[in-house]
Amino acid sequence: MILYDSQVSGNCYKVRLLLAQLGIPCERVAVDVVDRSRRAEILGGKNPSLRVPTIVLDDGRPLGESNAIMWHFAEGTGYLPEERFARAQVLQWLFFEQYSHEPFVAVARRWIMFDEVPSGEALAERHANGYKALDAIESHLAGREYLVGERYSVADIGLYAYTHVAGEGGFDLARYPEIRGWLGRVAAQPAHIPITA
Amino acid sequence: MILYDSQVSGNCYKVRLLLAQLGIPCERVAVDVVDRSRRAEILGGKNPSLRVPTIVLDDGRPLGESNAIMWHFAEGTGYLPEERFARAQVLQWLFFEQYSHEPFVAVARRWIMFDEVPSGEALAERHANGYKALDAIESHLAGREYLVGERYSVADIGLYAYTHVAGEGGFDLARYPEIRGWLGRVAAQPAHIPITA
Repeated sequence: MILYDSQVSGNCYKVRLLLAQLGIPCERVAVDVVDRSRRAEILGGKNPSLRVPTIVLDDGRPLGESNAIMWHFAEGTGYLPEERFARAQVLQWLFFEQYSHEPFVAVARRWIMFDEVPSGEALAERHANGYKALDAIESHLAGREYLVGERYSVADIGLYAYTHVAGEGGFDLARYPEIRGWLGRVAAQPAHIPITA
Repeated sequence: MILYDSQVSGNCYKVRLLLAQLGIPCERVAVDVVDRSRRAEILGGKNPSLRVPTIVLDDGRPLGESNAIMWHFAEGTGYLPEERFARAQVLQWLFFEQYSHEPFVAVARRWIMFDEVPSGEALAERHANGYKALDAIESHLAGREYLVGERYSVADIGLYAYTHVAGEGGFDLARYPEIRGWLGRVAAQPAHIPITA
């Protein structure tokens, strides 16, 4: 199995973390996240969005989108609830992550890490929307240990990936005690690995 | 069951279309998509992103995110495949829709419909990225009848919602024969309803 990967990408980290926790080995192929000129050559026909992570199963079938890849591997394991409504709640948080969190929290981090900030105004807009997402997570976690069903699941992995490195994007997590407690619980899960692994 | 809804929203239309095809009735509550000042009052505690659609089941449990709501209702029906990898492919397309299609194709439409275009440059950027998404769908559909497993599924509903009204966002679908054929097949499904229904 081959994972087209980027070590700094939180989206790729989701897949690496889940596979580590499931004990599933995979070969990693590093894809450049700054120079995207070879994306079509490397990922064409494997992933319609030409993004990483993209995984190619042992039988050659390719799959894209970090949260879809997690769902595929988590199915039938303790990382995905069995109950119908709880599963829909997991998906709610994963779609929230890709629409209302990642485009702001991850993009601000990327701009800062790779010295790509287009303007102070653009960064301020990403910060404002990113803080809205963090506010929503903070409110939801009040009185809860995990995002869905009081149990660690791929919903937590999906939101942990970019939230735990939000500081690298200029976000201040000091104001979020619920999130900080939850980040600690996620990091304390068996077989947890850091994003740098 | 209550659907917090907007008639013009393609995201809400996904839910209305699937529920119509499943024969599940629901009460619709219209939520303003231009004046968002009452969002927290109406949707707070129901949906972390304060977006429509949000659905409240008969037992009071709320669920947000159009694609998560579709998944919940499609489970166990002919609108969602049973096979594990095909289900992951459905999710791949739904995540593609929310990350690589909706922010461009739907937002350009919204700007034009509500006279909110911030600048010609901003609209051109949405068009460029929207066309990338449409190009990816066009390529994928070559030789295929539907997006996943040669069968109509919630993946098709998810991508149909904003693609079939892309012209309202200034996109020209004339260059996409595969997409136009697929839109016709989706619209010909039993119990199909238009976005204006």
